[in-house]
Amino acid sequence: MLHAVIMAGGSGTRFWPLSRQARPKQCLALGTPEPLIVETSKRLTPLIDFENQLIVAGRKLETPLKDLFKEWDTSQFIWEPCARNTAPCIGLAALLLAAQDPDAILVVLPSDHHIAQPADFRAAIEAAQQRAALGELVTLGIRPTRAETGYGYIELDQMLDKHNDHLAVQKFVEKPNQQLAQTYLDGGKHLWNSGMFIFQAKRMLSDLCKYQPVLYAGLKALEPHIGQKTFSAELEYIFPRLPSISIDYGVLEPCSNDPDGEPISVIPSNFGWNDVGSWEALSDYNQADEEGNVKSGRVLSIDTTNSIIQSHGPAISVIGLESLVIVSTDDAILVCPRDAVQRVKEIPALADKLKWGDLC
Amino acid sequence: MLHAVIMAGGSGTRFWPLSRQARPKQCLALGTPEPLIVETSKRLTPLIDFENQLIVAGRKLETPLKDLFKEWDTSQFIWEPCARNTAPCIGLAALLLAAQDPDAILVVLPSDHHIAQPADFRAAIEAAQQRAALGELVTLGIRPTRAETGYGYIELDQMLDKHNDHLAVQKFVEKPNQQLAQTYLDGGKHLWNSGMFIFQAKRMLSDLCKYQPVLYAGLKALEPHIGQKTFSAELEYIFPRLPSISIDYGVLEPCSNDPDGEPISVIPSNFGWNDVGSWEALSDYNQADEEGNVKSGRVLSIDTTNSIIQSHGPAISVIGLESLVIVSTDDAILVCPRDAVQRVKEIPALADKLKWGDLC
Repeated sequence: MLHAVIMAGGSGTRFWPLSRQARPKQCLALGTPEPLIVETSKRLTPLIDFENQLIVAGRKLETPLKDLFKEWDTSQFIWEPCARNTAPCIGLAALLLAAQDPDAILVVLPSDHHIAQPADFRAAIEAAQQRAALGELVTLGIRPTRAETGYGYIELDQMLDKHNDHLAVQKFVEKPNQQLAQTYLDGGKHLWNSGMFIFQAKRMLSDLCKYQPVLYAGLKALEPHIGQKTFSAELEYIFPRLPSISIDYGVLEPCSNDPDGEPISVIPSNFGWNDVGSWEALSDYNQADEEGNVKSGRVLSIDTTNSIIQSHGPAISVIGLESLVIVSTDDAILVCPRDAVQRVKEIPALADKLKWGDLC
Repeated sequence: MLHAVIMAGGSGTRFWPLSRQARPKQCLALGTPEPLIVETSKRLTPLIDFENQLIVAGRKLETPLKDLFKEWDTSQFIWEPCARNTAPCIGLAALLLAAQDPDAILVVLPSDHHIAQPADFRAAIEAAQQRAALGELVTLGIRPTRAETGYGYIELDQMLDKHNDHLAVQKFVEKPNQQLAQTYLDGGKHLWNSGMFIFQAKRMLSDLCKYQPVLYAGLKALEPHIGQKTFSAELEYIFPRLPSISIDYGVLEPCSNDPDGEPISVIPSNFGWNDVGSWEALSDYNQADEEGNVKSGRVLSIDTTNSIIQSHGPAISVIGLESLVIVSTDDAILVCPRDAVQRVKEIPALADKLKWGDLC
């Protein structure tokens, strides 16, 4: 049976002032009708009933997430005692789901991405499910549209053509420099690593046993407590002691480099994926107006072009500006050039330094 | 006896979003510890007790002004039934004060200016008072420091030197173009018209009789009602029927052009006068920080220079900006280049057009 595991770990300081420590990116509607994590869940429901979806998140998000998913059962949330990157998170989900369904197939995905064509996305999941049922560890790879240096890439064992619905993974490669990214784009043998994986729970546990034995041992120590009153206390003790490592480094890379590794395949996909990495992303999937502005909320704009103007609080009025990002909330405002959006995270850091904790 | 008449008529759309229809410029603290009109009153008190100060304003400002001047008697406020420019306002004040003190000398001044050296300002008033006691109509002229095209000028009958403490006025000249303003600046025979006047009430009434007979007739019709229950109703009827004309056009210019006119003199002054005409003015009388920014309220600034950043509501954070004006209030935000501040009044006009009345 297909189960969704939605990872909600990100803090999203790049969306300050809308994102805050207690209100991270995945809990925000970022140029979307609903918060990204709600969009993520609803996008899956035609394929996976919400009862078969799990959210893994830090305990500090308990209140906002339970508010967003009122109809969910408490058993559908896994509260991580602390952040330990994706491998422990995915391992824990695999352990729990394998216990309740030995043939469980997991769709593991981030909670804070945008997908423009959800039907194509679900078709890719279904294709991946078929491969996963054969025991493969399947990733969704995005056909690159630019020489992006912000993503990891998946290298294929053959040239990509339009007819491939799945391919074997040659290896996973880290974020490239500009020149290498261009080579990847031109070469036609690389896809963006979307961070979305589909696999049988038992395959993942077997790979963890092989490539992350310490992590696996920790999970095995938890196993007898599943469904018991002791589970929470054991998780509280064990989880912080698990190695903090990503699934890419911890499993995918060693497995793809292992001549005896089980097969890893990739579904080349093109469903309008966007990782919503900064305010700039809003212009990727929201239609700009005639002046090239991406506006939401109350905005009074005079002679202003090519700007991202988002009012989530006070009305924003602008005169004679170009290529700026302006965001308002009830307690804070951001103004910066579009080409400085990657620096937005410096603001909450500065607020922290100034002991303006309410702005962090 | 010296009486102050503080004219509080301006609407100040150029200070949007801080200024609104019900909260005009004079009621705001604009880079000052207290609202400009409070600063104006307090600046005078070493010379003129607050009991001898009058405020003339539109009825719609009754609530905010009574809040700012809680200790004042209701008789110290004159509520204009409608805006009729400065000549009816000054004429009415002269009529009322002459009725209670035949030798009243009036210090008439706007409520929304900034004065950096208040002691020098009071010294100028005292010098003016001496001339006014001789029957002269005295203006305070500001030694120009730049070729300003936004002010009217006072032309002297001789070259200005450092020893002049008062001079005869040759004539009043309107706002010049850039070239003419430069000629005035270079010539040394022109001062800025500050809009501050000192004169005996009876001299003003006599001039109004001569140069504004219709206005004078209206005031004379009011005279029998002074101190009577009928006064308010008569003012309500007569005031809107008075000619709407400024004191400059209505009295000063015709008098200065009249060979038989009574003397008009000017006190050349230099007390750090600023008419606070736009957000730009804040940089004239507030010290900029090391980055050239004039900030107030909670501001988080990274790599930003030469900007005016005023938080009166949400905190403002900026990265990588130059020469902008950014102002926040609880319900609205302004962002524009410094050289566009003269266009700020277009914003409330646009809000009005969009029927966003709360932002006007």
